Amino acid sequence: MEGKRGNLFIFSGPSGVGKGTLRKKLFELVPDLCYSVSVTTRKPRKEELEGHDYFFIDEETFRDYIKANKFAEWAKVHGDYKGTLVSTIDKALAEDHDMVLEIDVQGAMQIRERYPEGIFIFIVPPSWDELENRLRGRKTEKEDDLKKRLEDARTEMEQAKYYDYMVVNNQLEKAVEELKAIIVSERCRIKKQDKTIMRLFNCSN
Amino acid sequence: MEGKRGNLFIFSGPSGVGKGTLRKKLFELVPDLCYSVSVTTRKPRKEELEGHDYFFIDEETFRDYIKANKFAEWAKVHGDYKGTLVSTIDKALAEDHDMVLEIDVQGAMQIRERYPEGIFIFIVPPSWDELENRLRGRKTEKEDDLKKRLEDARTEMEQAKYYDYMVVNNQLEKAVEELKAIIVSERCRIKKQDKTIMRLFNCSN
Repeated sequence: MEGKRGNLFIFSGPSGVGKGTLRKKLFELVPDLCYSVSVTTRKPRKEELEGHDYFFIDEETFRDYIKANKFAEWAKVHGDYKGTLVSTIDKALAEDHDMVLEIDVQGAMQIRERYPEGIFIFIVPPSWDELENRLRGRKTEKEDDLKKRLEDARTEMEQAKYYDYMVVNNQLEKAVEELKAIIVSERCRIKKQDKTIMRLFNCSN
Repeated sequence: MEGKRGNLFIFSGPSGVGKGTLRKKLFELVPDLCYSVSVTTRKPRKEELEGHDYFFIDEETFRDYIKANKFAEWAKVHGDYKGTLVSTIDKALAEDHDMVLEIDVQGAMQIRERYPEGIFIFIVPPSWDELENRLRGRKTEKEDDLKKRLEDARTEMEQAKYYDYMVVNNQLEKAVEELKAIIVSERCRIKKQDKTIMRLFNCSN
């Protein structure tokens, strides 16, 4: 019998929608989820830990990895490279762990190419106004960057149809409950229940 | 734009597995679910209400309904006819209500023919021994009937692969939580989110 494989959950959606906050809350409720740690060429901030927040590597190594096709997805953002290693995902799934990728819409498109069996969850703001408010609230954005992000968000929304689920991040508690429900229900799928079926049939003689 | 349609959830599984208890607990947690009331030719018990527990009709009318193709599923059980009207299901779905059918495995097979878009949930006992204990615990079964039910259960288990989800009724709370998660996550499916998508796009100009 083939070994059981973990689920790959992809959390994506426009920038500013609150993916990170939702993901952290969800991990408190479902602690056996694995988080996919990304690789980056930017310098670590002081609170960041190697292997926990990111794997920090230099640009030359990153480009070697690209050539060697080691990335499930990668992008250059604000001058820094960032990506997810195939090995990070494959190891978790092979060990029957459920893994969560928190990723932008472009990255999710790349992941879909390599992992079409992934469970793709699109996280959306309750309204455009609210998204704008949230991006302004960060106060780290210049006005031009903010406009660019809002324009990108509109294009990204058109990708929604390629996803499996949509969660509206209106009330945090409700959105987290919906994400948890998706995790729990995907674990109940017949194709994930080989062990239960085998056990019940083995008891039948 | 086409109107939104409710989801049809089919709870099925071997006799004695606890479908009814689970369904009642679930309805306390998700009160906006509709329960599909069956039609039967047996006489009402004293606590049973017309239109709430069953629609009670005579055998001649039942047979007329069969000829007129009015049933989504029907069967003759212990000398009495029992069935689900197509109109009961279609009305609920057209009004955008989510409906739950609690039904035996044979009935679920008939429902799948007519409603392939239904969400089929197979409820299983934690073990064969436990199923036997539960059936014996009812004390309403003769030994021969009980043996027959256990044999049927083994055949019915082979149907599991045609279902979407499997829920093991080991701990009641956990099984109900899984059923609820399936309801909540199915409501988050992209194809059920037309209104959300439309609203967000309408706000974009």
